[in-house]
Amino acid sequence: MSEARSPSKTETSRKSKRSGPSALPLAGRMEGSVHVLLVRVYYEDTDALGLVYYANYLKYMERGRTDMLRLLGVGRHDPVAGDAEGLFVVRHCSIDFLGPARLDDILEIRTSVAGLGGAVLDLDQAVRRDGIDLVTGRVKAACIDKSGKARRISPKIRQKLQHLCVTR
Amino acid sequence: MSEARSPSKTETSRKSKRSGPSALPLAGRMEGSVHVLLVRVYYEDTDALGLVYYANYLKYMERGRTDMLRLLGVGRHDPVAGDAEGLFVVRHCSIDFLGPARLDDILEIRTSVAGLGGAVLDLDQAVRRDGIDLVTGRVKAACIDKSGKARRISPKIRQKLQHLCVTR
Amino acid sequence: MSEARSPSKTETSRKSKRSGPSALPLAGRMEGSVHVLLVRVYYEDTDALGLVYYANYLKYMERGRTDMLRLLGVGRHDPVAGDAEGLFVVRHCSIDFLGPARLDDILEIRTSVAGLGGAVLDLDQAVRRDGIDLVTGRVKAACIDKSGKARRISPKIRQKLQHLCVTR
Amino acid sequence: MSEARSPSKTETSRKSKRSGPSALPLAGRMEGSVHVLLVRVYYEDTDALGLVYYANYLKYMERGRTDMLRLLGVGRHDPVAGDAEGLFVVRHCSIDFLGPARLDDILEIRTSVAGLGGAVLDLDQAVRRDGIDLVTGRVKAACIDKSGKARRISPKIRQKLQHLCVTR
Repeated sequence: MSEARSPSKTETSRKSKRSGPSALPLAGRMEGSVHVLLVRVYYEDTDALGLVYYANYLKYMERGRTDMLRLLGVGRHDPVAGDAEGLFVVRHCSIDFLGPARLDDILEIRTSVAGLGGAVLDLDQAVRRDGIDLVTGRVKAACIDKSGKARRISPKIRQKLQHLCVTR
Repeated sequence: MSEARSPSKTETSRKSKRSGPSALPLAGRMEGSVHVLLVRVYYEDTDALGLVYYANYLKYMERGRTDMLRLLGVGRHDPVAGDAEGLFVVRHCSIDFLGPARLDDILEIRTSVAGLGGAVLDLDQAVRRDGIDLVTGRVKAACIDKSGKARRISPKIRQKLQHLCVTR
Repeated sequence: MSEARSPSKTETSRKSKRSGPSALPLAGRMEGSVHVLLVRVYYEDTDALGLVYYANYLKYMERGRTDMLRLLGVGRHDPVAGDAEGLFVVRHCSIDFLGPARLDDILEIRTSVAGLGGAVLDLDQAVRRDGIDLVTGRVKAACIDKSGKARRISPKIRQKLQHLCVTR
Repeated sequence: MSEARSPSKTETSRKSKRSGPSALPLAGRMEGSVHVLLVRVYYEDTDALGLVYYANYLKYMERGRTDMLRLLGVGRHDPVAGDAEGLFVVRHCSIDFLGPARLDDILEIRTSVAGLGGAVLDLDQAVRRDGIDLVTGRVKAACIDKSGKARRISPKIRQKLQHLCVTR
């Protein structure tokens, strides 16, 4: 565990590998301006009602957001700038639970940019099965720097997100 | 595992023990019309930012709701009727993340009844540290029967929740 | 939520879809007698040390086991027999944590059959990054019926697992 | 979120409060040389089998270990030295799942010191309900410094753990 903590040659080669083509299939895909990530429901996601536990949809949604930014090469997923371009943290979310997902389901996590402010990114997200939304949510994420302070979204990130913004 | 599945003498004595006084300290307490549950932040709750992962606040909030109903002897926590009185499942939540909780924090999960409809229960919840709200949320829960169908909140449950309803 | 509880036409078409080819890419692949599943590390998996939380490797390992059985069409993943062929539940595990995984890592979950008893399945598992094992484990799973009782592994399941057993 | 990141007057008073008497009830208690922590099973802990998900017992066990060290004022829970005295990370665990825990159960997490090496701490742990062990485990934890390097257990920590060691 000790050695692995300081970045090393292995670390570097690993990082470069992450942004390479082999990583892409796990990061979902863009369908027009909507990011789509497939996730499988495992036992860990369900609860004693036999359904996906309500907080776990927020995990799925975070996977979707993270992989959309990863695909776009934004923020900490920027292979050059990394964290310097800022991180996004959730300030607000509003979620509707319309129907339950179950063990073994394959779900589509759909993420689209609903708005882009000076320091704030609004996302619309949905968890869908067979074309039917089970959970929908609006998430407001704020851009922060490494010290946790709010910061303006950089022009570089703004440019990448702007053209996905459906209400621009 | 097999034997433990069918209710037995042990099971029965266990159930009765649960509603006994020894169980109460773990179910929080009422402060006027507000239910308060203390929770500790462990490694399992945090993420690589060093803060509590956003979806885990929803776990804390569910613990608070569950323990409020447990203290009131409502629904599946009714020592006689059990599930027959109905379960509550979350249909909507709206959450504001105001500030981060951290490893080792002791948090107060505060739950109060904000509204009581025919089949719907509105709750206001807050995650507080040292008197300051870190996360606040409004949760809309629907009453369902064992088969998952929506049902009216029974008079028995209604009576217990009504006098906690701050906006009644 | 109510309607979705009883199997319906939608349910049926969904089930059949699950065993179809579109589901396969999410279930990993066999490399000889070893099942390999790729998983991504998200914030939900990490803790305040900046590493994957130790219990979450067991989630990865369960995903690997489940998807190996799914690929083989074993037990609850049998498109015809379903649960009637039995479920596997973990009775024992022994895990070595050799090195940490981190946020954004892509990990290989490797699962192989180490032994096959009358009612017990032994599996060797590893969580690997860039060809290096980070976590290794031996898992002993017991076959149970729907009521939770131990049962012999059926000839049908045995046949499918037998030829993967490296020590047969 | 930004302000909360740098330690402040609030932070300091919070830290001192943590080690104060009000924090103790949440940290379990010693019964002779065994640490006992009560935990409640919530929906978040269960899975679609209606039982506690196997990896979640490891969360309970980590809560028990952490609270034992907290009660003893060891390592990062040392009110003066903090992290400087070292952290413990799990290198190996061996777990037997003897019987299932269920929703609403109150469980005793029992932790005792089984051995104390130069840089390694062996713990015996059990998850017990109504006097019956449901899960038992042996955990080997290594002492590391802030940089993640293995280090000898400090005399101060050793002294506190030594008298709990049942096999000393």
